[in-house]
Amino acid sequence: MESQNLYDGLPTAPETDEHFDSLLTKPNLRVERIVSSGQASPPDFWYDQCEAEWVVLLKGSAGLRFFDEERVRELKPGDWLYIAPHRRHRVEWTDAHAATIWLALHFHET
Amino acid sequence: MESQNLYDGLPTAPETDEHFDSLLTKPNLRVERIVSSGQASPPDFWYDQCEAEWVVLLKGSAGLRFFDEERVRELKPGDWLYIAPHRRHRVEWTDAHAATIWLALHFHET
Repeated sequence: MESQNLYDGLPTAPETDEHFDSLLTKPNLRVERIVSSGQASPPDFWYDQCEAEWVVLLKGSAGLRFFDEERVRELKPGDWLYIAPHRRHRVEWTDAHAATIWLALHFHET
Repeated sequence: MESQNLYDGLPTAPETDEHFDSLLTKPNLRVERIVSSGQASPPDFWYDQCEAEWVVLLKGSAGLRFFDEERVRELKPGDWLYIAPHRRHRVEWTDAHAATIWLALHFHET
């Protein structure tokens, strides 16, 4: 796939699971669209990823917490974060009333 | 810089030149925000890049042309494109009345 629109093919109603779509897959880089509709990480679950991630929230809102921080970061459209490899984090909440759209880049640091 | 908002620090009035801000710089990946305000590529100028690029238009509008295509692709918010290394292209126009915001990923294919 060479071109498309980020907002195409969105779920028309809230769904049980988040949607993950790979928009680009290269040896060193994967670009992914994530559509959330109220989901959160399971209790006590922390993402612990070998790859680095750069993620931007484009629509909706979400709460993201790093294991090494007390506070939950509230993300609004345009907010982006760099997540170093193995920096543990979880999604505390996503907007329950509208789609939350993320663009995530997964890549090896070196 | 570890986190920020894509829409922070936008020019408050149209400017002569485009704005380029590197949001992430890693050995294999550079994430860049580009803010255009009516600029276009100079006549007969074609970008010819060693690196691959994945670019999404987030706000505004633009016309992008590939050398190997006749038509100008009109981009609206959410439209993204993969540009292979050395695939020549140019920006024919960007919105003259509002900021056009792009998010561009530059990376080596292998």
